[in-house]
Amino acid sequence: MTFQEKLNQSIEKNNSVLCVGLDTDIQKIPEFLAGKSEPVFEFNKAIIDATADLVCAFKPQVAFYSADRTEEQLIKTINYIKENYPDIPVILDAKRNDIGNTAQKYAIEVFEKYGVDAATINPYLGKDSCEPFLGYKDKGIIFLCRTSNSGAKDFQDLVVKYEDKEIPLYQVIALKITREWNHNNNCLLVVGATYPEELKIIRNLVGDDIVFLMPGIGAQGGDIEAAVKNAKNKDGKGIIINSSRGIIYASSGEDFAEAARKEAEKLRGEINKYR
Amino acid sequence: MTFQEKLNQSIEKNNSVLCVGLDTDIQKIPEFLAGKSEPVFEFNKAIIDATADLVCAFKPQVAFYSADRTEEQLIKTINYIKENYPDIPVILDAKRNDIGNTAQKYAIEVFEKYGVDAATINPYLGKDSCEPFLGYKDKGIIFLCRTSNSGAKDFQDLVVKYEDKEIPLYQVIALKITREWNHNNNCLLVVGATYPEELKIIRNLVGDDIVFLMPGIGAQGGDIEAAVKNAKNKDGKGIIINSSRGIIYASSGEDFAEAARKEAEKLRGEINKYR
Repeated sequence: MTFQEKLNQSIEKNNSVLCVGLDTDIQKIPEFLAGKSEPVFEFNKAIIDATADLVCAFKPQVAFYSADRTEEQLIKTINYIKENYPDIPVILDAKRNDIGNTAQKYAIEVFEKYGVDAATINPYLGKDSCEPFLGYKDKGIIFLCRTSNSGAKDFQDLVVKYEDKEIPLYQVIALKITREWNHNNNCLLVVGATYPEELKIIRNLVGDDIVFLMPGIGAQGGDIEAAVKNAKNKDGKGIIINSSRGIIYASSGEDFAEAARKEAEKLRGEINKYR
Repeated sequence: MTFQEKLNQSIEKNNSVLCVGLDTDIQKIPEFLAGKSEPVFEFNKAIIDATADLVCAFKPQVAFYSADRTEEQLIKTINYIKENYPDIPVILDAKRNDIGNTAQKYAIEVFEKYGVDAATINPYLGKDSCEPFLGYKDKGIIFLCRTSNSGAKDFQDLVVKYEDKEIPLYQVIALKITREWNHNNNCLLVVGATYPEELKIIRNLVGDDIVFLMPGIGAQGGDIEAAVKNAKNKDGKGIIINSSRGIIYASSGEDFAEAARKEAEKLRGEINKYR
C-alpha cells in the first residue's frame, strides 16, 4: 500500500486530518516521568494511546531525539505505533537532504533505520539530490515548499523568472516537484498553515491530488478556518494538519495524556467544521 | 578561539587548504577491518593519523553514520581528533535546518552532542530558522550556496529579482548571508568546486573575508586549477577544498591509510600550486 492510500484510509477511519507532532523534549515532559528508564518513550506511548483514534498520522521530529540522545526511544516509539496502530502512518520530520551517495544514506536513515511511512525533505539541492528518496515508491516524500515561519519570506517569496512567468520561488518549487519529480506519485508539499493565501495559490497551482503537510496551527497561531478552507481539496482531504506543542504539552501533570486527548478532539472538531 | 582563527592556524601550520571528508561507509572500508568491534572508528583513526599533518580540517558526513547506526563511532572519531590533533578543526557535514525550537535542537545536536567546530546548514527556511546556529559565535556556520551537483541548477540558478538587480538565487543567498546574517562573523558558504565560474562570481560578490567550503574535487571531477584560482582570496586562503572518496578509499587493502596519505599529499601539492 502506498503512503497516500494508507493516509486516506486513516483519514476516513478516524474522520480526521489531524496529525499529532511528537516533538518530545525531555525537558518538557511531566516531572513524574523523569525517573523512568525510558521517559520519552513512556510519554510518547501515553500520547499515542490517548489520541490514536483521533489522528490521521503521527509525526515525530528527529532533532528532539538526536539532541537529547533518545534516538533509541524514537525507534521504539515508531515500532510501537506500527505494532499497535498499523493503520496510522508515521511521518518522520527530518528535513534531510544532500547530494548523490550521501542523499542515499539519508534515505536509508529515514526509510530503513527508522522505517517510517513518509519523511520531510529539503528540495534546495535540486532533483538529482532527491532521487534516492523518490525511488521509495510507497513512501511519502514531503518537500518543503512554503514554510510556516516568518523568515520563509527571505528566499521562498523571492520573485523568480520561470518559463514565461514571474512568480515566487515557492511556487516554482511546487510546480517543479508536482510536474517533474512526481513520477511515482509519492510527492507531498509542506505549506505552513500560517499563510492561508499561499495555501490557496498552491492548491490552485497543483490541483487536488497533492497532499499538503501543514504545520503552524496552535503554538504558531495559524487560523484554522482560513487554512482548512484554502488548502483542502474537493473531497475535504488533501491536507495533514499538524499540531505538536499545543497537544502534547496540554498539561504537565499526571493527566497529560487525557489533556492531550481533549485538545486533539477539540482541534479535530474545529478542523472538521471547515472541510 | 573562533572557527576561522583555528582554521587559519591549521592552514598555515600544515600549509594546506585540503579537508579530508570522513564519509566512512561500513560497506566500503577494507575487508580486514570488518571483524573489529569498531571498524568505522578504526578506519577513521588510521586515516586521521595518516593525514593530520596534511589537512586544514576533517569533515565527517553524518548521514553515513546515521544510516549505518555508527553514530557512537562518529562521536569517538570526533573526540579522537580533538584529543590527538586539537589544532585541526572538525566540520560536521549535516545540512541540517528547521524552524524555531526545532532548529535549536539541531544546533544542540551538532555543536553540543557532536561538539564539532563547524557544521553545514541549509538556508532555505530563512534567517530566523538559522539564528540558533548563528548564536554559536565561535563555531563556523557553513551555508549551502551553490552546490556541486548537476541538479543545483533546478533552483539555485533561477533568476531572481533582488533589490534593483536580476541575479541567480545562489547569489542572493550569498549576499544575504554575508551582509545580513554574519553579525558574529561566523558564516561560511558551500560552493561546489565543479563550477569555477560561479566560484569567481561569488568571491567577487562577498569579498576576501568569507571562507568557501568546496566539495567536488576528485570523484566529482572538479578542475583543481580553475577552482583554486577563482575561489582563493588575496592571501591564498579563504578556501577549504574537500575530498572524501578519492582519499579515504584510495586503496582497499591493508595499505589504505598509507595510500590515503599519498593521495592527500598529492592533492595538497596540486592545490598549493595555484594558491
